Amino acid sequence: MVRTAAPPPVPPADGSPAALAWSTENCPIGRTLDVLRDRWSFLVLREVFNGVRRFDDMRVRTHIPRAVLSDRLASLVEQGMLRRAPYRVPGRRTRHEYRLTQKGLDLYPVLAAMLEWGNRYLADPDGPALDLVHRECGEPVHLEVHCGSGHVVTDPREIVTRPGPAARRRSA
Amino acid sequence: MVRTAAPPPVPPADGSPAALAWSTENCPIGRTLDVLRDRWSFLVLREVFNGVRRFDDMRVRTHIPRAVLSDRLASLVEQGMLRRAPYRVPGRRTRHEYRLTQKGLDLYPVLAAMLEWGNRYLADPDGPALDLVHRECGEPVHLEVHCGSGHVVTDPREIVTRPGPAARRRSA
Repeated sequence: MVRTAAPPPVPPADGSPAALAWSTENCPIGRTLDVLRDRWSFLVLREVFNGVRRFDDMRVRTHIPRAVLSDRLASLVEQGMLRRAPYRVPGRRTRHEYRLTQKGLDLYPVLAAMLEWGNRYLADPDGPALDLVHRECGEPVHLEVHCGSGHVVTDPREIVTRPGPAARRRSA
Repeated sequence: MVRTAAPPPVPPADGSPAALAWSTENCPIGRTLDVLRDRWSFLVLREVFNGVRRFDDMRVRTHIPRAVLSDRLASLVEQGMLRRAPYRVPGRRTRHEYRLTQKGLDLYPVLAAMLEWGNRYLADPDGPALDLVHRECGEPVHLEVHCGSGHVVTDPREIVTRPGPAARRRSA
């Protein structure tokens, strides 16, 4: 049915969005999500970044079911974001705790960006529950987007995507 | 059973990690994950940041099942990250596309951080599928952590968490 009502405020685009020409098969964001899988992995990483490295301590803080926590830890180790390091409490058997590898440490901006956004939009009325501060000077930290020419990019609309060397055309 | 084997390379910590004293109930990362829910929402946001705003186009690019896509879009609208804007293709009824609100735009660093990490660790042998570049100068962009005193923080181990005004002690 053709409607003849007033035209909508947003006119139809003349062409499809440019992104439609490209395959998402090897998208770096998709692949990152494939290895992180779900919110549990993010929470596990949050714990390790917070210095909580042991299974039982993670359980206390996250309430992740045991089987799920085991599985996500194993997956993060397999993917190379965490490594297992032995420890022993006197009088008990040797167990393993989890430490970040460089690959894991490099996920820091992802978590820091979530924290910053959560503090901006989802904090309690009395303020954030948690701040990140620079150890050296005690000042809060924040993320900035910089370009190779040294500009600070404050508006995401100033950023465009560019197909890289591995970009694949989407097959129709 | 007490084992008397050689001590493990990592000695047991003398105390619990400091984070154990605090509740994660109102953690900003946890809350951000609560509203983003799962990987589908991240993929939907990726699409909108890429200029893909319409349901059918998102389906083509993400292969998210229809019901899941509807649900995640409704949820992102309800949470204020997306807004619905009408559009009309000539000869067809008015439909809605999805646009980022300021709250949604402010999630950009989360996605940009995932992209940067994915490009570093999960790219194809011939390079990234996608780069983010500054529109003005064409140079690639990257994330930096800065502190309030103007330092660039390159190692996450230089950053510490500090309980904010809404921090709650964990009940035992």
